[in-house]
Amino acid sequence: MSSHSPIGVFDSGVGGLTVVKEIMRQLPGESMVYFGDTARVPYGSKSKDTVLKYSKQIVHFLRKKEVKAIVVACNTASALALDEIKQEIDIPIIGVVEPGAKMAAEITKTNSIGIIGTESTIKSGIYTKYLRAINPEITAVGRACPLFVPLVEEGLLEDRITDDVIERYLHEMKEYGIDSLILGCTHYPLIRNAIGRYMGAEVNLVNPAYETAKSLKALLTEQQILNQSGEQAHYEYYVSDGVDKFSTFAAKVLPCHVERATVVDIESY
Amino acid sequence: MSSHSPIGVFDSGVGGLTVVKEIMRQLPGESMVYFGDTARVPYGSKSKDTVLKYSKQIVHFLRKKEVKAIVVACNTASALALDEIKQEIDIPIIGVVEPGAKMAAEITKTNSIGIIGTESTIKSGIYTKYLRAINPEITAVGRACPLFVPLVEEGLLEDRITDDVIERYLHEMKEYGIDSLILGCTHYPLIRNAIGRYMGAEVNLVNPAYETAKSLKALLTEQQILNQSGEQAHYEYYVSDGVDKFSTFAAKVLPCHVERATVVDIESY
Repeated sequence: MSSHSPIGVFDSGVGGLTVVKEIMRQLPGESMVYFGDTARVPYGSKSKDTVLKYSKQIVHFLRKKEVKAIVVACNTASALALDEIKQEIDIPIIGVVEPGAKMAAEITKTNSIGIIGTESTIKSGIYTKYLRAINPEITAVGRACPLFVPLVEEGLLEDRITDDVIERYLHEMKEYGIDSLILGCTHYPLIRNAIGRYMGAEVNLVNPAYETAKSLKALLTEQQILNQSGEQAHYEYYVSDGVDKFSTFAAKVLPCHVERATVVDIESY
Repeated sequence: MSSHSPIGVFDSGVGGLTVVKEIMRQLPGESMVYFGDTARVPYGSKSKDTVLKYSKQIVHFLRKKEVKAIVVACNTASALALDEIKQEIDIPIIGVVEPGAKMAAEITKTNSIGIIGTESTIKSGIYTKYLRAINPEITAVGRACPLFVPLVEEGLLEDRITDDVIERYLHEMKEYGIDSLILGCTHYPLIRNAIGRYMGAEVNLVNPAYETAKSLKALLTEQQILNQSGEQAHYEYYVSDGVDKFSTFAAKVLPCHVERATVVDIESY
């Protein structure tokens, strides 16, 4: 694999574009192939077996695109499938969980950290596992927030209903006196303002997308496959369903013109 | 196919159990094989091609179970896939849309009917098509309500947040002076009390599940395959993911003990 090859990025749907955005910003020389599993979204309520099976199909698809590294830009897939996939492939692969946990562990002063995410991510306990491995003194409090993704997809980013749902999900979290909150789902950064308003300025919101792009840079440098050619990066987008909907969402999230996505029959991979 | 064979019922997930419940009540002699596509739920935001492909796989699975008739207990699949599937199979198959539309057309006095459902169902315009075919004088107003399904799945059946979302989606509908509202998604009957409270007593809520069971009875009678043996009906449940979650939901919806569901690799059908 040459340093000119693209990076493969995938998510259960469109949320992973928040990670793509950070990679574009921090690694402007890297080309990307993005796959969003919009036909089978959401992953957050699905079992480990199903998420693993879907993730393997996507990795298989991305390998055919000759990517030099893979970013699992989905917390649920990172939580449930990354460990097993890592053992099966011979190119670098990173998820969003480890970088997010690392950052939260670095910035906490009270050692009390909150994690919000999908049902499957929270149930997996993976953030807590990583946090405790870094610092056994850390107390982690997790909370599944299943309505956040549909609210974001409905575009209710600044809305009284979203504020109400945030209060419902996070009022207990507030009582724990956490000083850092990990946004453990790639959709959540899109409502970070509303979450931040409710939690207050004393709570740091950790966006794993930002940390993941940083870790990716370190990984590519270490493996000597960072693209330093200065050539124009190019981006390809693939989805399993709903090209138009994807384009609308992508245009909102990404800072550049988004090429039309191509539909892939992912079940055949 | 003998009259002793079971009826196949399918939905994108658990919502179709509201139809199963009505069939149990109105046709207590009929056995059923239920399939819920819990791995690929929801269908309501997916394209026609994808919903058709998924529906065909499920019909194929149900045929292997030797069902004598099929009920598409999902508004989205009824809207997007039923017509094509009908042409391909030689056993009776009905959806929930036509019975729901028929009932609404019967009871309306003002000829002004509202329809709520998923994005794909509303976009398909199928309820309007059926209503107009019955009575060209009818004015139909459709509204997609994407947050209702996640709210029901979160169990917020009686909740201020649900009331707020109902108001948000339905306030325009109220101004149209409709006298009947079709609950065009199998999840919605679970929040019918809250919807009814908001719309007021002068608006009739039409539950297609009830009408579908009635139409099924007529169809089985006409085809002479109604089970009149008096033997005990039995029910089998299959899902594509998440057996425990399915059981919890089924126990809430159905009036009888629910046998444990079996997971099916539906992509291989």
